[in-house]
Amino acid sequence: MNELEFIASVRRRMHSIPSCGEGIGDDCAIMPQDDGMAMVVTCDMLTEGVHFRLDTTTPRLLGHKALAVNLSDVASMGASPVASFMSIARPGTLSDSWCDSFLDGYARLSERFGVPLMGGDTTASEHGLAISVTLIGRARYDHVKRRSAAGDSDVIMVGGTLGDSAAGLRLLQHNPALAHELGLDVADAPVTACHKNARLAPLVEAHLAPMPQTLEGRWLGERCEVHAMTDISDGIAKDLRQITDMSAVGASVELSQVPLSQELTEYCLSEGVDPVRMALCGGEDYKLLFTVDCHKVDRLTSDFRARFGYEPVAIGRITQGEGIEWLRCGVPTDEIFSGYVHE
Amino acid sequence: MNELEFIASVRRRMHSIPSCGEGIGDDCAIMPQDDGMAMVVTCDMLTEGVHFRLDTTTPRLLGHKALAVNLSDVASMGASPVASFMSIARPGTLSDSWCDSFLDGYARLSERFGVPLMGGDTTASEHGLAISVTLIGRARYDHVKRRSAAGDSDVIMVGGTLGDSAAGLRLLQHNPALAHELGLDVADAPVTACHKNARLAPLVEAHLAPMPQTLEGRWLGERCEVHAMTDISDGIAKDLRQITDMSAVGASVELSQVPLSQELTEYCLSEGVDPVRMALCGGEDYKLLFTVDCHKVDRLTSDFRARFGYEPVAIGRITQGEGIEWLRCGVPTDEIFSGYVHE
Repeated sequence: MNELEFIASVRRRMHSIPSCGEGIGDDCAIMPQDDGMAMVVTCDMLTEGVHFRLDTTTPRLLGHKALAVNLSDVASMGASPVASFMSIARPGTLSDSWCDSFLDGYARLSERFGVPLMGGDTTASEHGLAISVTLIGRARYDHVKRRSAAGDSDVIMVGGTLGDSAAGLRLLQHNPALAHELGLDVADAPVTACHKNARLAPLVEAHLAPMPQTLEGRWLGERCEVHAMTDISDGIAKDLRQITDMSAVGASVELSQVPLSQELTEYCLSEGVDPVRMALCGGEDYKLLFTVDCHKVDRLTSDFRARFGYEPVAIGRITQGEGIEWLRCGVPTDEIFSGYVHE
Repeated sequence: MNELEFIASVRRRMHSIPSCGEGIGDDCAIMPQDDGMAMVVTCDMLTEGVHFRLDTTTPRLLGHKALAVNLSDVASMGASPVASFMSIARPGTLSDSWCDSFLDGYARLSERFGVPLMGGDTTASEHGLAISVTLIGRARYDHVKRRSAAGDSDVIMVGGTLGDSAAGLRLLQHNPALAHELGLDVADAPVTACHKNARLAPLVEAHLAPMPQTLEGRWLGERCEVHAMTDISDGIAKDLRQITDMSAVGASVELSQVPLSQELTEYCLSEGVDPVRMALCGGEDYKLLFTVDCHKVDRLTSDFRARFGYEPVAIGRITQGEGIEWLRCGVPTDEIFSGYVHE
């Protein structure tokens, strides 16, 4: 039973229980409150060997990431994070200093966005390390952004460069010790500049310690010209597909517009890999993907730049068709792009 | 680093972040809302080999228990459950029918109390099975019950018989196949009445599929003569200690008043074990433990009986002293009782 079959089984068994909002299907559940606000809730579980390896990351980076992926889900709803809850099953082999550093990474990111850790559970594990985080967010109900709200002829925008995380994962697969060699850590430790791969550090960091677009998500939530929103966790080829499927629209994406970092471009050149494919199909970018009323893109972009000092990037349009059409300089291509598949 | 040290490390690192309510320290976090209500949130993680063994339970019983332990936490705050979130890390060895039965057990208990499953996460596990449930409840803020609210000379009461679960665990340790032999399952399957241990089935069921006092907890929450409340998860010797420590009071408990089931008494007699010790020190009863204004116990008890058809049991008094004094027929005993210790 894969992930989708498991979720289908959940839906079948739970359909008779009256819901208290919108459940499975978006980045967060949405629970309307009496005062015109909505609570949004997301859960992510990270397990050793599947989502991380203890030899390729550091406890501080892992603590950061465990919270970051949930912050990204709340941002993608246009909501502000309110409180986190963290449960952890720890093998006896983890040292005290490992646990302290893990909590330090988690606490630093909590502090950055002012999100208190309000509870959780800690237990022994006879097997690997497992971390489960629940994050509660809040927004005005009519500001909540859904995947299903893309409108015909909306412009499709992304919040930053794509593919960096996928390249970082590829680098770690070739050299599991790379984060350690580069001195990467959340603790403001300087990257070892003399390492031959020092220029690739941002790629590895994008994978091991992504920075969620928490403030941007909240800000975009308040803009009514922003229609659908999600975060890019499985690659845009899959995440945009979620938007088009749930909004019953199509999309057209111009590959030459997909924003790529200088580091990714250089890395892919040296490896003989297509950076655009990595940007579309790689997972775990945790950048926002959203659609905007086509008449209001310029204003939104300049307001965004005034607020955040950089611009989101338009990569295509919502269409009346079905599925996603990929264009290279305006010409449709037959290439097939698919996102990351779980399990 | 044990559980308490881990929590202490969390507190140290998080103290600078403004809280949005009351966090670590009670059965649930408490988050006040603008409308005079409060949201309560609890998380429990169950891991294979630590909290359960796949050979001693059934998937349906396990699905039930994963939700039940969280329902019990919400009940102990005097709150009503509103929504659950379940994350599961599944080894590839679990069959489709195992997953279906697990969800069936979870759904039946969800349905019993009308609690929708609003989200969660499903992921592969390279190691054992891990289940993490977050449950959100709601109550009027001034109805929320805390461990710290016991008043001097309050009567100490419990919601039902104690020790059954500990005896069930002991039975399973001696015969891991017992639940299967007895035909125990949540699915209304009849217990195999001819099995030589058929009379012990309620003990095994109390351990593998405890029934949380959800309706009772909510009802007690609305009674202002109920002061402190918690649920008995680690044995009353430990859980009552939480109440006395956090309320800065002492307690005196009459051992002859501790309610024991007929099945427990018979089992302990046949095994030469002290049933009272099992009732005080065994874990996972998931019965409510609460303190009541001594002038209003009779009225509360009769109202409770009128509502639920059975009575809570008075087992002692809150005192001005420190710690817990154990009495046998009014005479203090030197015996030492301590609850279940994690990790």
